Amino acid sequence: MKKKEQHLLKQLMYPSSIAFWGASNNPMKMGTMQLTNVLETGYQGEVYPVHPTEETVLGIPAYRSISDVHKPVDLAQLTLPTEVVPGILDECGRAGIKRAIVISGGFKEVVGDRGKQLERQVREIAGKYGIRFLGPNCVGILNSLCSLNSTTIPRPPMGGKIAFASQSGAYTAMINPLLRAQGMKMCQTISVGNEADIDLTDCLEYLKDEPEVKAVGLYVETIRRPREFVMAARETIREKPVVAIYVGGTEAGSRSSLSHTGALSGPDKVYDGLFRQAGVIRALDLDQMLDMLWILSSQPLPAGRRMAVITNSGGPGSSLAYHIERAGLSVPLFSDELAARLDAATGPLAFVRNPIDLTFDTNMFIFKELLEIVFESGEVDGAFIYGIFGPEFMVNLEKRFPGLHEMMSDWVTDYVGFLEGLAEVPRACGKPTVVMSFMGAGSATIGPLIGLDVPVYPSAVRAAQAMRSLLDYRLARESG
Amino acid sequence: MKKKEQHLLKQLMYPSSIAFWGASNNPMKMGTMQLTNVLETGYQGEVYPVHPTEETVLGIPAYRSISDVHKPVDLAQLTLPTEVVPGILDECGRAGIKRAIVISGGFKEVVGDRGKQLERQVREIAGKYGIRFLGPNCVGILNSLCSLNSTTIPRPPMGGKIAFASQSGAYTAMINPLLRAQGMKMCQTISVGNEADIDLTDCLEYLKDEPEVKAVGLYVETIRRPREFVMAARETIREKPVVAIYVGGTEAGSRSSLSHTGALSGPDKVYDGLFRQAGVIRALDLDQMLDMLWILSSQPLPAGRRMAVITNSGGPGSSLAYHIERAGLSVPLFSDELAARLDAATGPLAFVRNPIDLTFDTNMFIFKELLEIVFESGEVDGAFIYGIFGPEFMVNLEKRFPGLHEMMSDWVTDYVGFLEGLAEVPRACGKPTVVMSFMGAGSATIGPLIGLDVPVYPSAVRAAQAMRSLLDYRLARESG
Repeated sequence: MKKKEQHLLKQLMYPSSIAFWGASNNPMKMGTMQLTNVLETGYQGEVYPVHPTEETVLGIPAYRSISDVHKPVDLAQLTLPTEVVPGILDECGRAGIKRAIVISGGFKEVVGDRGKQLERQVREIAGKYGIRFLGPNCVGILNSLCSLNSTTIPRPPMGGKIAFASQSGAYTAMINPLLRAQGMKMCQTISVGNEADIDLTDCLEYLKDEPEVKAVGLYVETIRRPREFVMAARETIREKPVVAIYVGGTEAGSRSSLSHTGALSGPDKVYDGLFRQAGVIRALDLDQMLDMLWILSSQPLPAGRRMAVITNSGGPGSSLAYHIERAGLSVPLFSDELAARLDAATGPLAFVRNPIDLTFDTNMFIFKELLEIVFESGEVDGAFIYGIFGPEFMVNLEKRFPGLHEMMSDWVTDYVGFLEGLAEVPRACGKPTVVMSFMGAGSATIGPLIGLDVPVYPSAVRAAQAMRSLLDYRLARESG
Repeated sequence: MKKKEQHLLKQLMYPSSIAFWGASNNPMKMGTMQLTNVLETGYQGEVYPVHPTEETVLGIPAYRSISDVHKPVDLAQLTLPTEVVPGILDECGRAGIKRAIVISGGFKEVVGDRGKQLERQVREIAGKYGIRFLGPNCVGILNSLCSLNSTTIPRPPMGGKIAFASQSGAYTAMINPLLRAQGMKMCQTISVGNEADIDLTDCLEYLKDEPEVKAVGLYVETIRRPREFVMAARETIREKPVVAIYVGGTEAGSRSSLSHTGALSGPDKVYDGLFRQAGVIRALDLDQMLDMLWILSSQPLPAGRRMAVITNSGGPGSSLAYHIERAGLSVPLFSDELAARLDAATGPLAFVRNPIDLTFDTNMFIFKELLEIVFESGEVDGAFIYGIFGPEFMVNLEKRFPGLHEMMSDWVTDYVGFLEGLAEVPRACGKPTVVMSFMGAGSATIGPLIGLDVPVYPSAVRAAQAMRSLLDYRLARESG
């Protein structure tokens, strides 16, 4: 049997050695920031800074030229003035380097012919030596699976099961605070820039076969090879969902894309059709894309649209019911039989017909039992929970009740056990479950829950739209 | 001239003294949490815990009965079992108390006749003594103007210029982590619960005349007095904008509202019409309401729909352009004259036709000058900025460049000065400006900007929809 050929991005994303151009001992240079981040993140491969004058860069021996390195180099990253890029890429080719990331801007995306001419030149040189490259006009890569961060952004939250390939460099890099705020992590990110060579379609083909990646996000200003994109996406969604942001579909959006990556965009409807054909779920913006990727990478797919709402507070319950229905899902009235079972399990003030509203006084540890009852009934395909609170409510009390923390230590143990049990139910029953909470990822309530792979959303509308994306994925995959 | 009568909520929101029922020395009781928060927040009025057996509660002398207090009491807060509420309220009446907050649930909102009967009884007793009250089934109040927090939620971010009146107790209390994440504060919140007496219309009439309150949010499951609500809202929006969330408009949303606050809700369209007539802006959910209140309480109103986008990064620029147009605003192509002025101020790689894209390399301190140029041109009515970065990029660098922090101290000073200058431009030119950034409110970049009253949104779609609400408010006020 013929061994499957390694995808061209494999060597680029998992390089054993990298040569850097543009890093120096000036901390204000982009290249210096990138190399600093590579060193800080714990990358285990070899690193060769190439610099015309410095003996060392960031404490590492530097080389006058790539021809001085005399060792195999898997990847070249070029953060250089536009005009010198073709010459250096030629040197890379002569040194036998086959993969490159061209960070430099000033090519096709700028006004005038010179940039376009230079980009053509870069492509020709790459073609001559068989170099496959990302960019130009990109920000680098992140691969938590080999602890590599070649962007300027320090300390990204690395890990998790989500990958992101983007025509916006800013979005790949600046996504980090959003991820951190939600307790999410990024497994791999690829900034494709102007896509003079490697494009989003290549990224899809590559990410499809990355086993640790469970969901893929794309930021799209244009699709350069629509036919190949649709094929690659349809192949990918057999394995894992794909969510795309597209912002080229208005007049000013299109004008902006053209000046950004030289991309020719099309009207919203054209791209909606393209994504539908490809089985790709469209997200409005980065925050919604992350909301969707979170549930898509962590929860089982729903068999249908019927959702349970379990809450200990009326407002969030009503909001969830409303937004679930607005998202095209349903909140069915429970049968008498199911209501009777729930009645037996809950207090006298509870409403149990869906939403199940326990009202404030009730012990929330009952959430797990209720979730099991509604899932076992067969009357719903998924669930939303509001009302999980952890040790935070003790903040002010501790000062006046000095023994409180110890007094509550059993409760805190029970609480963690409760969360672990709760997080198991969706997997055991094969039905997706999300939590709505205003507490942040850093809180003692929500932090552990996120660690147990339960997506937590700060509003009803976001929770509902995320759940809807899970159904959309199932339907797209089935129609493929 | 007749002095304007004080609104009934004034005494309730600014009490000189409060009697508490339900607080004890058991830290797990709701009433204890509430009184703890009152004491912790720095409330300067008198506090009288009423308790049948304890000599002191939380270190304060307790009273067997309100008749033992023998001092004037402005407000009673009752956190008691349902059945005892009428009797205690009667005692309050006999003691001459005229304002109350009934926290207790178990009234009209629960299944069966008993709760409805008890709520009728509470209304009758209140009527007999002239007591005006919030609730039952509410969570208390927050008034940063007299450092009062009578809810169970510790340490709310108090201050600012926003008020919120809500039929959901959870939303008034649990809003805090959302506020904190955005660097926002709450000036006053009022939880109206079942609205057996005081309702949202009363709250509007009261908040209209609170000078520190610059924008009002409402969470609505039903409007009990539509005609009075419309009148009160139209009066209010002459002074300040009103934003409402409504979630009763679907079948399950309506079912949930009924079980929550006994509210009879109506279809979305009916409420859309009501809000339009009232000049109230509708928000989808709590997060969108806060987005809107933020800009509405801090930025000048736009004269029209034309928006400038100033960015140093293409992806966010394209996203802003797209979502601004989708929100019904426009991103006009700049005139040759304006483009020439911008060209003269920017670097060779910049695109200046709108969006203005400076590309990554450019010094962002130029944002202020560009903003002034576009505002002075008369070609736009407002602006969006992406690309403000503070000292965060130094995080990893500091370790390898030990002198960096001192080396950069001038830059940091310049940076703060730049932010101060930037924040002045919208006020000076009378044109609203918002910033898009993924950095959180706790960051050294965004924290100072928020302190300067510039709203910062973490996504293009949220920034655009917030700006749209500002135009909607202007139009609503003009049509009134």
